[in-house]
Amino acid sequence: MAVGYSQLPELLPVAGIRWGITQAGVRYKNRRDLVVMELASGSTVAAAFTRNAFCAAPVTVAREHLAAAAPRYLLINTGNANAGTGAPGLAAARECCAGLAGLTGIGPEQILPFSTGVIGEPLPVERIVAGLPAALTALDAGGWAEAAHGIMTTDTVAKGLSKQVEIAGKTITVTGIAKGSGMIRPDMATMLSYIATDAAVSRELLQEVLDHALNHSFNRVTVDGDTSTNDACVLVATGAAGVTIDAPGAALEALGTAITDICRFLAQLLIRDGEGATKFVSVRVGGGRDTDECLRVAYTVAHSPLVKTALSASDPNWGRILAAVGRAGVENLVLEDVEIYLDEVCIVRQGARAADYTEEQGKRVMSQADFLIDIRLGRGSVTETVWTCDFSAEYVRINADYRS
Amino acid sequence: MAVGYSQLPELLPVAGIRWGITQAGVRYKNRRDLVVMELASGSTVAAAFTRNAFCAAPVTVAREHLAAAAPRYLLINTGNANAGTGAPGLAAARECCAGLAGLTGIGPEQILPFSTGVIGEPLPVERIVAGLPAALTALDAGGWAEAAHGIMTTDTVAKGLSKQVEIAGKTITVTGIAKGSGMIRPDMATMLSYIATDAAVSRELLQEVLDHALNHSFNRVTVDGDTSTNDACVLVATGAAGVTIDAPGAALEALGTAITDICRFLAQLLIRDGEGATKFVSVRVGGGRDTDECLRVAYTVAHSPLVKTALSASDPNWGRILAAVGRAGVENLVLEDVEIYLDEVCIVRQGARAADYTEEQGKRVMSQADFLIDIRLGRGSVTETVWTCDFSAEYVRINADYRS
Repeated sequence: MAVGYSQLPELLPVAGIRWGITQAGVRYKNRRDLVVMELASGSTVAAAFTRNAFCAAPVTVAREHLAAAAPRYLLINTGNANAGTGAPGLAAARECCAGLAGLTGIGPEQILPFSTGVIGEPLPVERIVAGLPAALTALDAGGWAEAAHGIMTTDTVAKGLSKQVEIAGKTITVTGIAKGSGMIRPDMATMLSYIATDAAVSRELLQEVLDHALNHSFNRVTVDGDTSTNDACVLVATGAAGVTIDAPGAALEALGTAITDICRFLAQLLIRDGEGATKFVSVRVGGGRDTDECLRVAYTVAHSPLVKTALSASDPNWGRILAAVGRAGVENLVLEDVEIYLDEVCIVRQGARAADYTEEQGKRVMSQADFLIDIRLGRGSVTETVWTCDFSAEYVRINADYRS
Repeated sequence: MAVGYSQLPELLPVAGIRWGITQAGVRYKNRRDLVVMELASGSTVAAAFTRNAFCAAPVTVAREHLAAAAPRYLLINTGNANAGTGAPGLAAARECCAGLAGLTGIGPEQILPFSTGVIGEPLPVERIVAGLPAALTALDAGGWAEAAHGIMTTDTVAKGLSKQVEIAGKTITVTGIAKGSGMIRPDMATMLSYIATDAAVSRELLQEVLDHALNHSFNRVTVDGDTSTNDACVLVATGAAGVTIDAPGAALEALGTAITDICRFLAQLLIRDGEGATKFVSVRVGGGRDTDECLRVAYTVAHSPLVKTALSASDPNWGRILAAVGRAGVENLVLEDVEIYLDEVCIVRQGARAADYTEEQGKRVMSQADFLIDIRLGRGSVTETVWTCDFSAEYVRINADYRS
């Protein structure tokens, strides 16, 4: 069960998008593992992929196809990541695209492939291609919820959200889904997210909107710092609502806010659904000189195994937080200027435990399922927030036992 | 029990050094917790301290004193780190030095203070000062083994080593001791190390020797990336053997090798003695263009919780190692050029699982208590090695339960 989230909310269809989901037996029987997303002709597409130098074969092929043509279909399989598979893996990803191209009468470069599942195993191309006709037959504009389930691997809950905004007197819909349980198993829990709107937006503007949204969502969450070889996020604008946004301004801002809100909701869900996670913790670093130093401090705290195990035990061990801030590599950081709060409780002030702080206050905050570590550097005006979870013995059990 | 180490070897006295150990009741009764190291007049001293921006009060005072005068005494207490204690902590460290200065008739700036233990509690200056006469009475050139025990906190074994080298027809002795159980509890397991030789070496040369030794020992070990606020390493040259080394050359090299060997042995012991550690793992990265990229890859692998939990389970999960190498941030890294070995077994070649690799081979290597992850980047001639341990459920248990 994810921390503070019980079930998928209602997902609204987005005109111009249809989903087809089927069981292809990629790795397991009787499991939805093949998902096709159909994009109306004229749709624009923005995308972001893993920064891991060793990206999976489908990521390489998707990047190539995106550069060559306007996508009409996204083809997603679970059960096999097609990563660490060398040249045969690239060929396998291309064969899957060719299979779908043959059935739909478009060029293979108009198809973007995505895979998630075990690393290092050959992709079962035949079973995937054999499953495509059923997926196409199932295509349905109301398929968002089923798609949210169809892309799950180790997720314990399906993840999605819809928003609507009024632009030029018309209702614009944005719906997004995601999978991933906190990147704590990059070989199984790749982050994949698909978001669509029925507004018309140029590809360049759409990419700007996506980059901004990512920097306030998926690029601000971390469980353990490990990055999957397959992570991908795609944003589609179908234009089917008859509203065109072709320049920066209020309309783009309204749409961008809705997209960022959806991305943040989905990104936080990855953390809330992290295996072994019992706490959802926001780490906010304020008073920094620039984004870089705020993020460096936030990630050092969020990745410290000593901080994360203390979170798990609801132990307000402020010495560990202080030590993590101190080793983050911020130049000329002055200990006496730093303050650290847990929610509203000040635990560190002027380089030492706050005079009015009591252990009971700290324990009360940390016993909650959802709280804030608030670090104020006292040297600037920039604030950044990242979201993380605790580090439980269950995490080690899951990740040590997995595969064996 | 430390992995692959059962007990302290014989430690040889170093002419010009005496140790006095006593029980001052800093935090616990009936425990050796106060240690004085006496340096012969004319000794030179090199030192290195934590890079944590929030260093403890004794570190600040030791740096000041070292800049002002030639040290004659080192004063070490366990049970209390005097860290996160603000201005009163600095005053407390100075009072301890003043106490020892009064008893020995030297200036307080000739004393370097060191503390290790809990963070954020006031240092019990009175009990420390009251213990000093007993420590001075106990001063003994044969006290190295007792000192190795006296500086322990959560260590399960005392750590030390001696070496002798022939220089200019005379026997030069080097002995070193250390404490710390792998920096996995920075609030209790500060790394402290004290090394001495009876050769005469100028302070500048001695610092060069120490810096080189650290970069091949204490600066190459990691359990979880957390750095203590109190880490310190001190190297003393007493000159009592009547051999002077005043320039680079064969003599300095022989001495430097002995010191590096001792530091490496002690640094590896910190890892072998990490709480919850069941494996001692060397991560060697070769074929790199420079030291920086080799270390970046090595530390990314050594810090990856996913790799470390796999080590704990003896699970040859090469996808996790490959993903960690890929996200280390090495520019233009070519997957096809990278090879990964476990000891002599090739697990990854040309971007995929090696054709002749079998899971049984990997499991056989990883079931050992001591093995090598050997990563070859295939783009240069630089090699670097770091040492780490696995990440067990016991680690989480210890660090979550600790303090509560």
